[in-house]
Amino acid sequence: MLDRLEAMPLIDHHCHGVLPRDLERAEFERYLTEAATVTPLGGSMFDTQAGFALRRWCAPVLDLEPHAAPDDYLARRTELGAAEVNRRFLAAAGLAALCVDTGYIPEPLLEPAELGRLADAPAYEIVRLEQAARTAVGAKSIAAYRAGLELAGERPGEAEITAAAGRLLRADGPPRVCDEVLHRFLIWCAADLGLPVQFHVGYGDADTDLRRGDPLLLTGLLRALAPTGTPVLLLHNYPFHRNAGYLAQVFPNVFVDAGLATHNLGQRAPALIAELLELAPFGKVLYSSDAFGLAEFFHLGALLFRRGLARLLAEGVAEGAWAERDAVRVAGMITAGNARRIYRLRS
Amino acid sequence: MLDRLEAMPLIDHHCHGVLPRDLERAEFERYLTEAATVTPLGGSMFDTQAGFALRRWCAPVLDLEPHAAPDDYLARRTELGAAEVNRRFLAAAGLAALCVDTGYIPEPLLEPAELGRLADAPAYEIVRLEQAARTAVGAKSIAAYRAGLELAGERPGEAEITAAAGRLLRADGPPRVCDEVLHRFLIWCAADLGLPVQFHVGYGDADTDLRRGDPLLLTGLLRALAPTGTPVLLLHNYPFHRNAGYLAQVFPNVFVDAGLATHNLGQRAPALIAELLELAPFGKVLYSSDAFGLAEFFHLGALLFRRGLARLLAEGVAEGAWAERDAVRVAGMITAGNARRIYRLRS
Amino acid sequence: MLDRLEAMPLIDHHCHGVLPRDLERAEFERYLTEAATVTPLGGSMFDTQAGFALRRWCAPVLDLEPHAAPDDYLARRTELGAAEVNRRFLAAAGLAALCVDTGYIPEPLLEPAELGRLADAPAYEIVRLEQAARTAVGAKSIAAYRAGLELAGERPGEAEITAAAGRLLRADGPPRVCDEVLHRFLIWCAADLGLPVQFHVGYGDADTDLRRGDPLLLTGLLRALAPTGTPVLLLHNYPFHRNAGYLAQVFPNVFVDAGLATHNLGQRAPALIAELLELAPFGKVLYSSDAFGLAEFFHLGALLFRRGLARLLAEGVAEGAWAERDAVRVAGMITAGNARRIYRLRS
Repeated sequence: MLDRLEAMPLIDHHCHGVLPRDLERAEFERYLTEAATVTPLGGSMFDTQAGFALRRWCAPVLDLEPHAAPDDYLARRTELGAAEVNRRFLAAAGLAALCVDTGYIPEPLLEPAELGRLADAPAYEIVRLEQAARTAVGAKSIAAYRAGLELAGERPGEAEITAAAGRLLRADGPPRVCDEVLHRFLIWCAADLGLPVQFHVGYGDADTDLRRGDPLLLTGLLRALAPTGTPVLLLHNYPFHRNAGYLAQVFPNVFVDAGLATHNLGQRAPALIAELLELAPFGKVLYSSDAFGLAEFFHLGALLFRRGLARLLAEGVAEGAWAERDAVRVAGMITAGNARRIYRLRS
Repeated sequence: MLDRLEAMPLIDHHCHGVLPRDLERAEFERYLTEAATVTPLGGSMFDTQAGFALRRWCAPVLDLEPHAAPDDYLARRTELGAAEVNRRFLAAAGLAALCVDTGYIPEPLLEPAELGRLADAPAYEIVRLEQAARTAVGAKSIAAYRAGLELAGERPGEAEITAAAGRLLRADGPPRVCDEVLHRFLIWCAADLGLPVQFHVGYGDADTDLRRGDPLLLTGLLRALAPTGTPVLLLHNYPFHRNAGYLAQVFPNVFVDAGLATHNLGQRAPALIAELLELAPFGKVLYSSDAFGLAEFFHLGALLFRRGLARLLAEGVAEGAWAERDAVRVAGMITAGNARRIYRLRS
Repeated sequence: MLDRLEAMPLIDHHCHGVLPRDLERAEFERYLTEAATVTPLGGSMFDTQAGFALRRWCAPVLDLEPHAAPDDYLARRTELGAAEVNRRFLAAAGLAALCVDTGYIPEPLLEPAELGRLADAPAYEIVRLEQAARTAVGAKSIAAYRAGLELAGERPGEAEITAAAGRLLRADGPPRVCDEVLHRFLIWCAADLGLPVQFHVGYGDADTDLRRGDPLLLTGLLRALAPTGTPVLLLHNYPFHRNAGYLAQVFPNVFVDAGLATHNLGQRAPALIAELLELAPFGKVLYSSDAFGLAEFFHLGALLFRRGLARLLAEGVAEGAWAERDAVRVAGMITAGNARRIYRLRS
């Protein structure tokens, strides 16, 4: 089953750019997990599931032994240079297509076209709802980071929108969309445009308030959006992935993935994938890496996802719970078929 | 251990009637999971854990090979006819008794007596709190669907009840009990009658607001009910089954099951059963199918529950964590002993 | 791997005293789990994961066969006497140091010094925030039991504190600190003193309101405390241990354990430990028993924790996910190294 999955190109329906420059150890550690800061009190971020998985699976791509020590890993990374490192990991991921979120660029990152060139696969753009782009295949909401996911179901009225926009414009400092009304308004705009809407859900960095990132908070909005047929894609979801699976089952237009969490859980990724696939129908589950900054995550996310899914499917076949042909069909749906259908991708 | 469990009749302490008529594929899929609607965007509901488990375990009961294709399965189902299909699955479940919830009849379903005849076991009635029945062995609250489970602990006063009833009667349209006060009032009435009270908790269809179905919301009410000794049965519970297990441990009158979720999780049901049995004392866990509409669920729920429990108990014996005689005793409690004691069933 | 872990002394960074007297069966059962009361309706508390684990692992320490019947176990316990029983279990735990919470003494318990003597290890004191102690290595907050964990991030002002203290003093009955302001004030006092602060989180007895014990409720306060460097230790955490692991990753000063839940989950403890170690960096995880009343819990907590951690680490080694030297190093950090660093213990 793993052989079959390794032969299946993945569509990574949510990822970001990677850094085009070399990194010192402290910087690398900060990119390695969602940690706010790294301090001696808490130890190295290499001592995490993500760090252990990276040393196991990324070291050989750089011609090192598995489990190479962190300093050896970083020395080899610098020796090869960022361009070669990025090339190797994007190629290793085995992608059929990428949908790149271009809405968060704290420092220069590789552009979608360049990522696509390295991956030898078409790269599509996902835009933040606050922006506009004729060529995007989807829009992304970061309401979880701003207003929380408890968005009302009703489409906001014009007076409500004008008032909220006025408050935003009159506020001091750079404008930051924290108003629930404006997030809702933008989501309905995307629905009008027929664009699939991705939501950041659950796991993220220390700036998120995880309690306000539970996908169940979206229930009213999902109920209101269902009749429009707008695909809603719940990203990441951990530790609320079972809640997300429930929503994917009961609402016809809701889809889920386990991006970001997959590589952060490392050796435990199979448990996450198995729990996600409890209530979520197999036609509702997608792959994403949510890779950001480090090219390693393209490889690690793809590898851990393939291995975790292969284990679940192979166990089911071995126990007679499902036929092998069904398992292979489900693998094809989850690796690429579902994403291709939902985003109407050409490849 | 599985052989022993297969020889133990189950008491299904919460189920519904099944359809006496044949079904087209679209209808069958709608009954197969809790999905609101089935659309081409999300794929077939046969491509779910529930669908895969049904093809694996129900096909042979209809003389088909395991993993029969959905269309072949439905053709054979129609060929045999609903009466024969219902007879086969109710018999296959191996039941000692059934407690049938008769409070939700969107279209004609088999009556408890008829279900009991097919299962060759006594059938008892569970009535909705809003109704009255001298012969019921328990009452069912669907507060989770109406007011949410955040019910206050205090018994409501007469003036409060009268005011709430007045509001209900004056409301337009068919009366629908959404008032927290009235749900609480009805629960205290059941307690006065000495009736065990079942609560819909967690997992259900798209009409529920899952956030308001967390059993921890009942904490205040459970604390108030504890001195009355009224048994409270938390049904379904997924994905809050660990929360439910906690309540079962700390409150003397709280009991739990994993109905509905067991057959929806299919191959993953053992994980659910293992998690439920973390904090929940073994004297507090019951079996239910929550079968509704499709007779398959009587068979599937019973089979997956027996297999999941057998696996957990057998692993414990194999690892020396408990003695085989204790494992067999626990199996007897959970399959039927606990239900018999709580509902005071004669058989 | 298990052999190696059995050779590693544990630092139990949160425990309580044990009873110096013999116990009748009903009393023993009340101490065995967090159950409010034990009734015939719910069955014996020996029929729990905790009870089964106790019979398996504690019976041999009293020279009985594994799985001894509860009455035989208690007869032998009385025959040996509490002093000998306590001596055996504290020694069996294999401790390097203990941090004893002395804030809850409903009846006479062994003092820290006496526990240390029995364990042949230094015993340190953890004081309740409401108290003061120059010798304590940490302070403990039970806000979860009083005000809930939804504490604001801001340090309260003097007028606010004075007003809240006035309300407390004017209240009837014995003073009970339920005011959110006062809990916050005390936490900031501990931070000023440079004391690590332990929080009761999640699982506890029927007096807690588990919903208000979700560690995510602390997010604002944790964000405010991060710049002070005050170590915050989230205790117990079940069933919110994945939420706690997230906080441990994203906040530099947050640490987690699985005390109390470890022995209550018995045979299922490995699942808990594996889930805790998903997002929590390995430098952020500590061991505690949260033993209270029964000396058995010192042994059971230590044994189940060592076995669960050994299983996770050994599986990773067997699957090639990490090198054995890394696994051993992580075991050393989690059993004692992290606690020694955070509490600045001499041994």
